[in-house]
Amino acid sequence: MPVAKLEMFDTTLRDGAQTEGISFSVPDKIAIVRALDAIGVRYIEAGNPGSNPKDMEFFRTAAGMRLKNAELVAFGSTRRKDLAVEQDPNVLSLAEAGTNAVAVFGKSWDLHATEILGATLEENLDCVRDTVRFLKQQGKEVIFDAEHFFDGYLHNPDYALQVLDAAVEGGADVLVLCDTNGGTLPMRIYEVVSAVARRYPGMRLGIHCHNDSGCAVANSMMAVEGGACHVQGTFMGIGERCGNADLSVIIPNLQLKRGHTCIAGSLETLRDTVRKIAEIANIPVPNNMPYSGESAFAHKGGMHIDGVMKLPRSFEHIDPALVGNTRRFLLSEVSGKKAILHKIRDLAPHLTKDSPETAAILERLKELEHEGYQFEAADASFELLVRKIIGSFKPHFTLDMYKASSESPPPDGVHNSSAMIKIQVDGKSETTAALGNGPVNALDSALRRALCVFYPVLSEMHLIDYKVRVLETGEATGSRVRVLIESTDGRNTWTTVGVSSDIIEASFRALVDSLEYKLFLEEK
Amino acid sequence: MPVAKLEMFDTTLRDGAQTEGISFSVPDKIAIVRALDAIGVRYIEAGNPGSNPKDMEFFRTAAGMRLKNAELVAFGSTRRKDLAVEQDPNVLSLAEAGTNAVAVFGKSWDLHATEILGATLEENLDCVRDTVRFLKQQGKEVIFDAEHFFDGYLHNPDYALQVLDAAVEGGADVLVLCDTNGGTLPMRIYEVVSAVARRYPGMRLGIHCHNDSGCAVANSMMAVEGGACHVQGTFMGIGERCGNADLSVIIPNLQLKRGHTCIAGSLETLRDTVRKIAEIANIPVPNNMPYSGESAFAHKGGMHIDGVMKLPRSFEHIDPALVGNTRRFLLSEVSGKKAILHKIRDLAPHLTKDSPETAAILERLKELEHEGYQFEAADASFELLVRKIIGSFKPHFTLDMYKASSESPPPDGVHNSSAMIKIQVDGKSETTAALGNGPVNALDSALRRALCVFYPVLSEMHLIDYKVRVLETGEATGSRVRVLIESTDGRNTWTTVGVSSDIIEASFRALVDSLEYKLFLEEK
Repeated sequence: MPVAKLEMFDTTLRDGAQTEGISFSVPDKIAIVRALDAIGVRYIEAGNPGSNPKDMEFFRTAAGMRLKNAELVAFGSTRRKDLAVEQDPNVLSLAEAGTNAVAVFGKSWDLHATEILGATLEENLDCVRDTVRFLKQQGKEVIFDAEHFFDGYLHNPDYALQVLDAAVEGGADVLVLCDTNGGTLPMRIYEVVSAVARRYPGMRLGIHCHNDSGCAVANSMMAVEGGACHVQGTFMGIGERCGNADLSVIIPNLQLKRGHTCIAGSLETLRDTVRKIAEIANIPVPNNMPYSGESAFAHKGGMHIDGVMKLPRSFEHIDPALVGNTRRFLLSEVSGKKAILHKIRDLAPHLTKDSPETAAILERLKELEHEGYQFEAADASFELLVRKIIGSFKPHFTLDMYKASSESPPPDGVHNSSAMIKIQVDGKSETTAALGNGPVNALDSALRRALCVFYPVLSEMHLIDYKVRVLETGEATGSRVRVLIESTDGRNTWTTVGVSSDIIEASFRALVDSLEYKLFLEEK
Repeated sequence: MPVAKLEMFDTTLRDGAQTEGISFSVPDKIAIVRALDAIGVRYIEAGNPGSNPKDMEFFRTAAGMRLKNAELVAFGSTRRKDLAVEQDPNVLSLAEAGTNAVAVFGKSWDLHATEILGATLEENLDCVRDTVRFLKQQGKEVIFDAEHFFDGYLHNPDYALQVLDAAVEGGADVLVLCDTNGGTLPMRIYEVVSAVARRYPGMRLGIHCHNDSGCAVANSMMAVEGGACHVQGTFMGIGERCGNADLSVIIPNLQLKRGHTCIAGSLETLRDTVRKIAEIANIPVPNNMPYSGESAFAHKGGMHIDGVMKLPRSFEHIDPALVGNTRRFLLSEVSGKKAILHKIRDLAPHLTKDSPETAAILERLKELEHEGYQFEAADASFELLVRKIIGSFKPHFTLDMYKASSESPPPDGVHNSSAMIKIQVDGKSETTAALGNGPVNALDSALRRALCVFYPVLSEMHLIDYKVRVLETGEATGSRVRVLIESTDGRNTWTTVGVSSDIIEASFRALVDSLEYKLFLEEK
């Protein structure tokens, strides 16, 4: 039986970090925590402090964060079989991570206990019971992840249930059934979750699915039908092998189609949240991703376009606006107009959809998107673009020329990169040069040095993030690249974008926007 | 109740062709038909001859093909409401397409009949009955696709069933229930298919799902549990919006986990079939694709690698060889010594874990990972590294110097980037220069030009992918960057990596490894 309010448990930063090719820095993690908190998931599992010094550093940094909706969770395993729980360094680091809630995983497949841990079945039960009990004594909310539960239940159901019993005896708050290998099919998930729900009435049951059979989202839905109230997953379904259950699909499924409340924030921010997390993780959002993909509400077939125009729900399972996405007709020119109008309205409230400036902004945007620009994560560049077109922007300098180069071996024996630049401000010109770690760094230094002569306030700001994405990779090293730069002056933070087939030029464009935006903020 | 032998109905060439960005030529279609026939699906829906001259041409060309396992199917709609069936050009083109089987779709959602077709409910039933009967009279096997069946059944179940009745009265061989908008969830699919199966005992029932709720594979599985014996889908799940049910995941699910026979060919060719179709469609196979993806059996976490080594099924839902895939251990900071030893063993079987070379490799790897290198996706660079340390690698050239630069505005009015390079091979030196779209592109061209003087075989290879990741972004434009380059010579594909705070230098290192690896392959 479904229940009304469900707990969404996000593990993008822990299980998602197991994805091939993904690795999060501490500032990346902080930024993702902010995004997840804003959309309002209940729990954010952010790392394993005992296994990984970077995660330990994260929890130290995060201790001071104020979250609105979510709470952080530290993750770790049950105690080792030959250590007392209060002497197990991993368990202690969980206790000391500074979170109110902890997730502890233990073996529930008998074979794993004996073959992988080398423990007896009884020893493994003791590890589970002791660890949960110890962490409860430390005042923690304890979420117990029964690893390989579905395989274990198939192989030896009695033992799998004894493991849950041990967690309950220890005082666990939530029992999470994990399909760790991702091999279980939906009907089976439903049957097993239902059976466990009958055995532990009143207990909070959770589900943790992997996508190795392509069923992780559906399996999570079926678990909720069977009685689970706690759903674990990652945004975009990132994770080891074929990934985890995609929480960014499960949330709208549960909320729009089953009437559950899943998040504290607005579902209309879903698509933007997905894009933001993808940008931070430096991965593309698949075009065909349900709800948030670029093609999720794109209509190509003539009959479908005709049908949607007569009756939107004829070929759309939901109204795309409910998740912040927009309908697109692939052969027409109305793409994304509403979303953009919405944004323009914030920046220039006097414009209507029929103003000539609105048409000019849409036209320019279409050109820039065709070149590879994307403004979803670059609000400052978008704002400058709008202000340029409506005439409320005056550039603070003009570029006469720059030249940036790299040499190997380094000419001075140390720096392999240098840049020179000439700019003009109100008829006065300034020429300067700088060395750097790389050509972009040298050019960045030279430009700031030249501008600070005229605008000393620029010394307040610095760049905090720099990301590069190669577009249309068929051209290999000749491909265009998109650069995103995030800057701060301590009070404000803003992001700008530049695109070019030359990474130096792309970076320069994003840099210029960043500096112009700071000067614009100063004038406001 | 599941049945033993199931019919797989592939619509990659018809519904899959609705994917944004995909268009198949007639030779593409022929090549895909051959691949699908070889793996042995039962039906290949190849186009709509009435709506599309290219599809008509395809059916004329395909008439002479001899297929081993599959048969072609032509697709089209029921007759128009104001035409006699024998005068409807679309129906006639179906009859004349030269296939034994035809798929006919008709409206089963009352709203669609009235609002989209502008027909009365009775007229729509006549269209269905007449069209099926006419095609049966032409000696065809008729597969009736009940479009929007699940939405229709929700809205007006009596009418949705009347539409199926009309198809049965016309003599339909298969009734296919379509979740055209992809919005239905698995439990509901099961309930509706079960109800329809009870109403039409002995009738062949089919399922056609779309992925708008991320459940298309699971929904197809649930339909089979409910009594369907005919499953429609596309390879890799391509299709309009969020795509169709992924037949290349459904087949191994049904065959390996439910004991059904789905294909006449060998499941061990699955991965290669997926790659072949992806190549023809000119789309990448997602790394995380179940069964066939590059990461589907890749292990990164140290505990997982340790577990798989002790007991493969501990973290694998099936043996990867069953679908023609292979296990991979990713080399990363969390993967531990064992995974690396496993890889070294393949490259240098004479080394043991106690050899001094093994210690040297591990030491060097740790240094490089600390600098930001990651070898999990860069097998070729890893192999070169091992060969350098064990002494089986001799470089094919040495660099004297390079210089790459970017200028704005472009000095020649066109190219803003240029590079010069001086290299030596066996005491002979070569100096050359090139212009480019960006400094990396210019340096790439200059280096190849210089090397081709000595090694003309290098002209066989080209780069197919170029990725850039900025590391430890706290340093902003002074951060280190990691570059991954994927190269091919048509027979082999390999990936190399380079790291530096200078993107040009990082790219140069990955480029040098890529060229050295090609020369090493030539000598093997």
